[in-house]
This record gives sequence, structure tokens and C-alpha cells, in this order.
Amino acid sequence: MSEKKPFKVGLIRVLTSEDQDFVDMHGRLIMENFPGIEVESRCIPDQWEGIHSHELERIAVPKIVALAEEFRDKDMILVSCADDPGVAEIRQALPGMPVTGGGETTVAVASKYSEKIGVLGIVDYAPKAYVRMAKEKLVCVEKPEGVNSTLDLMTPEGKASCLECAKKIKAKGAGVIALGCTGLATIGVAKWLEAEVGIPVIDPVLAEGLFAYYESIRR
Amino acid sequence: MSEKKPFKVGLIRVLTSEDQDFVDMHGRLIMENFPGIEVESRCIPDQWEGIHSHELERIAVPKIVALAEEFRDKDMILVSCADDPGVAEIRQALPGMPVTGGGETTVAVASKYSEKIGVLGIVDYAPKAYVRMAKEKLVCVEKPEGVNSTLDLMTPEGKASCLECAKKIKAKGAGVIALGCTGLATIGVAKWLEAEVGIPVIDPVLAEGLFAYYESIRR
Repeated sequence: MSEKKPFKVGLIRVLTSEDQDFVDMHGRLIMENFPGIEVESRCIPDQWEGIHSHELERIAVPKIVALAEEFRDKDMILVSCADDPGVAEIRQALPGMPVTGGGETTVAVASKYSEKIGVLGIVDYAPKAYVRMAKEKLVCVEKPEGVNSTLDLMTPEGKASCLECAKKIKAKGAGVIALGCTGLATIGVAKWLEAEVGIPVIDPVLAEGLFAYYESIRR
Repeated sequence: MSEKKPFKVGLIRVLTSEDQDFVDMHGRLIMENFPGIEVESRCIPDQWEGIHSHELERIAVPKIVALAEEFRDKDMILVSCADDPGVAEIRQALPGMPVTGGGETTVAVASKYSEKIGVLGIVDYAPKAYVRMAKEKLVCVEKPEGVNSTLDLMTPEGKASCLECAKKIKAKGAGVIALGCTGLATIGVAKWLEAEVGIPVIDPVLAEGLFAYYESIRR
């Protein structure tokens, strides 16, 4: 495998930050876990709270497509967000370019583990991939109390609230928990929640990485 | 990653062979594509034609579970067959052991690529994972003419027949082709078919490997 050229991924963050270390977090996680993948991460401008409403998504999509255009020399583009904002629009703008996001990849992975999927996210609507791909498998969509943006997830109160929420999802009959926000990956809660709750917890950044890796090996 | 212990997979072939090279084919493909995974492959006894009917499956399942018991020290067990024979039974026999097969992993991967899945297999019924996980997404199940067992797939006529079949599946509206037999992986037809037909073709052995890799990194 060492002889292969690296598989170049352009990763789009939908939360604006001037801290490149922060912007690189998802890409770093992917590169740590999937060999042969080289990720360049960039964020869209003027989206300081990320995307946690349909209105914020509407504003973000043209900026996402514009950034994707700058990644047209990559082997693949990832929109690193559980709602896949702009994924459909990038497919139209860049035909032939493999494109995916944290939503559809997480649904696909979660569907391997159970026919009853619960979503733990930061909004109270299901990421659109669930509605499109797995509506009949969706047990519930739950939002940890007091958590309204990716930033709230980084506090101890935010983590405790996540655990309560995961327990509630399991109690409602879910056989797998899909994290409905990539911010939860950034703080590494999937392993911890899984150990606490006892059902698989799917991390959207690892799910994105898994499908980027799959693209890299099936060529 | 080099510091990590290898992730040990016990792989069950459901086609009997005295040729260990042949038995090792799926495991070799997985090890070539997924670093850190160490596969030991073994086949069940007295199943010289593999599993290409419900009756042959009924006979195979107890033998598969018995072989799985011998793999109880592994980190994971793969039943390398698109119909996942014995997967549910192994889960009952070995609680806590990660177990999967070529069926449910292929459905999960295929569902990422399209909501319209066509199956190309060697039997005219859908592998059971499709019925359970993706019935509403299943466009058609097609069997290449003249191909009745894994062995028939290895002839030039068998390959030509596969291509005709893939074209038919695309014409019926499928957006992705899931190979419904791991024997098709053994002869490496996925890449070739994909290039010829122009829609993604999902190889069940790579799909199994992808989820084994996912198990290995999410611990």
C-alpha cells in the first residue's frame, strides 16, 4: 500500500474559525484513522455558529459550493457536517467528483448495526439524510438539554447532558445511536457514550473517513 | 498506527475446498486493503457447492456456528457470504463477539450510494439482508444467465454473462449494483463492471473488510 499515491480529500468545515488547528480537527481524525488519505481542511467564511437551523443552512450552501470549486483538483470532497449541507449542490456543480458528507455516511454505517436508529444531535429535526435514506428506521431525534450549538458541546455540562440524552434514546428502543453533529466527534464522545450506554454510537467524522477510505481503495 | 496490536478476524468460508490458497482469497483481499487486520480463514466441511439455495443454507448453518465457536478468541468474525448465513445464530451463540457478513455490510455500503439498489447474484432470490434492511430500495435481483454456482463465475462465459446482467440492472433504474455473491469478489469483477456500466458496483468482500476495519478503529 505504501507505493500508492495519497488520496487527496478536500474537507469543508461549515463552522468558521480563524484557528487553523480547530479547522483541521476533523481532517486530523480522518488521517489518524485512515492511512493513505491526505486531507486539506478549509472553512466557509462568516458562519461563526455553524449550521444549527434551516435558515443558517440556506445561507451556508452557496459558500460551501464556492469552496468546493476550489477543491476541484482533489480526489474527493467531504462536507464535514451531519446534515450534508451543499452535498447535492456540489454534485451538480462538479459532476464526476466523489462527494459525501457526515449525514449519509453515518446513516449508512448505522444501518449496518440496527434497524432502529436514534439520532443525538444539536437540533430537534433529523439531518436530511435520515429522512431520505432511513425514515422508517428512525426511532427518535433527541437534543441534549441546554445544547444549542457545537460550542455548547465542549463544556462539562454539555457532555453530561449528552449522556442523559443517549440513555433516553436507548430507552426509546434504538439499537444504535447516530451522532447528529460532527461537533460531537471533535470532542470524542462516541467511544465514551458507547461504553456508558452499551449500544454502538456512530461518529460522523469516522463515518465520513470510512467512505473516503472506501473510495480510495476501490479505484 | 504501527504500535497497535493487530485486529484478529476469523473468516468463515461457506464453500469447502482443500486448497488453502483458495480458502484464503477473501482474507487476503481484506488484508491487502485494510491495514492492521489479521485474517485467519477457514471453510466449513462438506459444502462443495457453497450456498446457492435455501436448502444448502439450512445444512450449512450449524457447521458455520460450530466453526465460529473455534474462533471465539478472535476480535471479530466474518461470515464471508452475501446471504449472511449463520450470522444471527453466531450472535446468539457468542454474545459480545462482533459478527457480520457480506450481505448486511454490502447493503449498508450500497445504501450510501443510491436509494435504488440492484442485486447481481447467483441465485434469483435477494440475499436476506436486503429483505430485512432495504426492501423498499431493492429495484431488482438479477442472475447472470448460465451461472449457477461460484464456480461458473470463473469462466469467460460467466464474466460476459455478468456484464450483460449488470447492464440490465442499470436499465431497470438501479443507481448502484450490489454483488450478491462473494465469488464475484474473488474474481475481481466489481471494478471492471463499474468501469463498463458507469454506476458504483459494491464488492461484498471489500464491504466486509470495511466494517471489520471500522470495528478495529472505533475501539
